[in-house]
Amino acid sequence: MSQKLNTPKGTRDFSSLEIKKREYLLNVLKNCFKSFNFQEIQTPSFENLTTLRGKYGDDEDNLMFKILSSGDKIKKADIDAFKNNKLSKFSNSLSDKALRYDLTVPLSRFISQNLNDISFPFKRFQTQLVWRAERPQKGRYREFLQCDVDIIGESNILNELECIKVYDTVFKKLGMPKVNLRINNRQILEGVSKLMKLESVKEIASILDKTDKIGVDGVIKELKERDLPDNSINQLKTLLNFQGTNQEKIKNLRSLFNSNQILSNGVDLIEEIIKTSQKFNFSNININLDLSLARGLSYYTGTIIEVSSPEEFNIGSIGGGGRYDDLVQKNNPRLSGFGISFGFDRIFLILEELKLFPNELNTSKSFLFLNFGLENLDTLISCVDKLREKNIICELYPSDVKIKKQMDYANQKGIDYVIIIGQEELRSKNFKLKDMKSGDESTININNILSEIENLN
Amino acid sequence: MSQKLNTPKGTRDFSSLEIKKREYLLNVLKNCFKSFNFQEIQTPSFENLTTLRGKYGDDEDNLMFKILSSGDKIKKADIDAFKNNKLSKFSNSLSDKALRYDLTVPLSRFISQNLNDISFPFKRFQTQLVWRAERPQKGRYREFLQCDVDIIGESNILNELECIKVYDTVFKKLGMPKVNLRINNRQILEGVSKLMKLESVKEIASILDKTDKIGVDGVIKELKERDLPDNSINQLKTLLNFQGTNQEKIKNLRSLFNSNQILSNGVDLIEEIIKTSQKFNFSNININLDLSLARGLSYYTGTIIEVSSPEEFNIGSIGGGGRYDDLVQKNNPRLSGFGISFGFDRIFLILEELKLFPNELNTSKSFLFLNFGLENLDTLISCVDKLREKNIICELYPSDVKIKKQMDYANQKGIDYVIIIGQEELRSKNFKLKDMKSGDESTININNILSEIENLN
Repeated sequence: MSQKLNTPKGTRDFSSLEIKKREYLLNVLKNCFKSFNFQEIQTPSFENLTTLRGKYGDDEDNLMFKILSSGDKIKKADIDAFKNNKLSKFSNSLSDKALRYDLTVPLSRFISQNLNDISFPFKRFQTQLVWRAERPQKGRYREFLQCDVDIIGESNILNELECIKVYDTVFKKLGMPKVNLRINNRQILEGVSKLMKLESVKEIASILDKTDKIGVDGVIKELKERDLPDNSINQLKTLLNFQGTNQEKIKNLRSLFNSNQILSNGVDLIEEIIKTSQKFNFSNININLDLSLARGLSYYTGTIIEVSSPEEFNIGSIGGGGRYDDLVQKNNPRLSGFGISFGFDRIFLILEELKLFPNELNTSKSFLFLNFGLENLDTLISCVDKLREKNIICELYPSDVKIKKQMDYANQKGIDYVIIIGQEELRSKNFKLKDMKSGDESTININNILSEIENLN
Repeated sequence: MSQKLNTPKGTRDFSSLEIKKREYLLNVLKNCFKSFNFQEIQTPSFENLTTLRGKYGDDEDNLMFKILSSGDKIKKADIDAFKNNKLSKFSNSLSDKALRYDLTVPLSRFISQNLNDISFPFKRFQTQLVWRAERPQKGRYREFLQCDVDIIGESNILNELECIKVYDTVFKKLGMPKVNLRINNRQILEGVSKLMKLESVKEIASILDKTDKIGVDGVIKELKERDLPDNSINQLKTLLNFQGTNQEKIKNLRSLFNSNQILSNGVDLIEEIIKTSQKFNFSNININLDLSLARGLSYYTGTIIEVSSPEEFNIGSIGGGGRYDDLVQKNNPRLSGFGISFGFDRIFLILEELKLFPNELNTSKSFLFLNFGLENLDTLISCVDKLREKNIICELYPSDVKIKKQMDYANQKGIDYVIIIGQEELRSKNFKLKDMKSGDESTININNILSEIENLN
């Protein structure tokens, strides 16, 4: 193996310390989800393409990692499609499965498959990896952990507020600074796109999604290039530029578009959410109505939300979600759902930079027994057994190499104490305990090893 | 979505209760690995094919889930290979990554990539999913959790014994019946295959691997079909049929093949392992020298072991491992490694059938606040907040539907207590607490809600 091997692009290894930090964050999330009585589920890493395809939008479909058919199935390759440069068709003939792109579509498959066994409203949480063939950036990877909570089977706005409360509780628990939660409603966007005589809400959504990058002026410029009614464009421009409280924004929106029923419904819902939110004692979240919020995924139909990273961090959103009405079964009001995701890696980055990880992730002391050869093993092994029985972290050096090498190992691995039981110690029934930080050495009766070491831990 | 959607073949969803049981088992494993001072690492779900290919053997390579190249990379499709029915070549032109097939080859890539930062001996554990495109069977899935410990950088037999001790400790902790651990050495097999004038040890290994299914007679029959020296075949037959203690088997082996150096080395190592094992106080493991043990994976070079499931279970092995000398760098003795795997799903099956999961997986009580409409939310939400602050599992029903429907939800979800704070309770400042198991109702002052409910938990 002479060539240099690496992790694939956009993926990472994790060391022991990184895993401890990730477990800390994951436990805060999971304990919060559990205290809200969400039920955990897990789904397979890949799903059949029949489950995944067409749920996200075309751009997103192209970012799925598809699994190459194996065995004889590969004979189904559509060579004509390849020759005619229909690469997407060619690619589809070679695969019938793909890695999860998110946790929401697998949830909808789970519900559809277990419809008769689930009692609704179904509150589930799920913390598993997802994969996207995107260009890697800071805080954005091709394999990353997604943490979702969803409530299926209720259209009440309390679902929205319960999920926002989940964000608030987690951020508070983590000691994060206050963050902005932007809120909008797809029905408002739909109303706007109707007024503009756009064919579908997707068009306006994909333009608005760029507001962060190109600003309101850029958005307006793009719209003007599309030959839309000047009047509507100007109204939208006024709206997007409008500064004020949520209540003022709502009033302004109503006065500009008062004749539009779809839009009105959306405005009513947002107003009710914002009003009721005052009863929820949010401590770490400010809710801001933001008409430029669109969110890419095509399955959203109602409320959409997105949590911005704290101001000093320029890493995009750290969470988002929305309401989807037709993901499980079309036109079944019983199966309306609302759900949110946490951007685990970006939150991790923030905790790291703000030094919010607790110091005591690494408190258990570790012990190394020096190895003086197979002959003297009996006593050593019975000591090791005693300690491990009590979950004390300890090990016997795995060969009787020179003591210096064994001590180097202890230093490099950050072992806290070295235990010396050689010939002399066996005779005197006293072992030596060396504190690797201070260098202090003490002599202890072998019979007391467990009690003495439990005291150190 | 009218068609019925399902999990892909050989994969599973997990419910909340299954996850709790899996977490219990995983924690027993991880806590044991930690007490032995193995360091956890995690690697990406997929690796570059350059990392994976050629490490396992041809059969295994075909069982990898390859990831279809995306974007323009798919233009590299080798259409000629397809036309000439060279499907494997065609398939390789369409992919440069595959899902992990095990955790050992990713470990060797990890070490190779971080060679200068790792201090040896490197003791790592890893518990992550692996994927194999095998035919699903009882206890065998296409996506499953593998739990590995490995020690890299030492060829001392204490590594073998330390890993066997890990098995022993875990099985004891789980309360499992005593199991057989079969042991053999690839050098013995190599010696045997040399005597038989076979081209490579792989041939004898792949035949011996079938002993479980076709018996010793079947193995001998297959060997006879290959035109091998009768003398050697008969010697092997005698060996495989030989019944006796480990020491008797070793003696017998030596007397039959005393002139073969490679084989002798293997026998010496096994003898030393078996002899030293007596110092290790194994309580849940019997070590048995078994010359029919071969283990499929081609990277093993020395000791190989396999743990059989307890006798009443016919589900194959529940763990196995071995020594590999050239996985990280060829001919670098510093990087010899020994490692073992736990068959998580099969051990899970055994715990389930023997009812070895603890009863107290599910002790936290859960509480449901009935919902009487948005107007009365303030008090309810402050009560909910108080309880969740203490990690008490509670929820507010997410809409003010009929009380009967809310109570049905509590029953179906297995809620322990329902809390009733309606108009009347708000006036009297006393809430009702209904025990859903007994049906008992009590009346409690709202100010005391936290202390009263903490007592129930």
